[in-house]
Amino acid sequence: MSKAIKQWHQLVEDNNPAGLAELLADDVVFYSPVVHTPQHGKAIALKYLTAAFAVLFNGSFRYVREIASERDALLEFELELDGIAVNGIDLISWNDAGQITEFKVMVRPRKGLEAVAAAMFNEMSGRQ
Amino acid sequence: MSKAIKQWHQLVEDNNPAGLAELLADDVVFYSPVVHTPQHGKAIALKYLTAAFAVLFNGSFRYVREIASERDALLEFELELDGIAVNGIDLISWNDAGQITEFKVMVRPRKGLEAVAAAMFNEMSGRQ
Repeated sequence: MSKAIKQWHQLVEDNNPAGLAELLADDVVFYSPVVHTPQHGKAIALKYLTAAFAVLFNGSFRYVREIASERDALLEFELELDGIAVNGIDLISWNDAGQITEFKVMVRPRKGLEAVAAAMFNEMSGRQ
Repeated sequence: MSKAIKQWHQLVEDNNPAGLAELLADDVVFYSPVVHTPQHGKAIALKYLTAAFAVLFNGSFRYVREIASERDALLEFELELDGIAVNGIDLISWNDAGQITEFKVMVRPRKGLEAVAAAMFNEMSGRQ
């Protein structure tokens, strides 16, 4: 397993978003499952991923499959969110330094996507 | 590239849904990007995939990335549908005979998922 993916799994396992800053490249691009526009740069990627640690990467969250190449990997996950079954993927690319350069998320089914969108919106806008 | 994925690409390239019956295992499971419930068996999988050939696999549709292991592969795609940018993945597993046993689809962003859901519903319900 690549260094980047190993470190990513460790952060998720420890629920340690503080370690993200080191793992993300400065020019990382985050692709939301909800919004089309790519989110450029470490600051905005940190905002999204820190919110994901808070609302998604806990409780029933688990990775169920991994397919990797030399420079990118698919990580499939499942969780239950507010009683809704969520199935999704993280599609992660990294550079020679082992830093994440691209992080793309997709979620199914439609109800799962709606649950994720609502939870992430509430977290990122400070609502409860 | 595995035999199953090579044959899949050939069918998409030729827009030839008639070749699907041979490529799918009898007990194939199809996972829709919209609906939670897995769709079991070749008959229902053929219905979904034949509709996808009609409304998605034409015009601007293209595969942009592939990550494969010995028994499954991720194929990432992009297309424009009714003016909406669609980005998605096919997550395909196969058996020793080279037949597809699992076909899972996820789509982003939310507007892209809505466009795919509408186009597939219209095609499968016979509406125009």
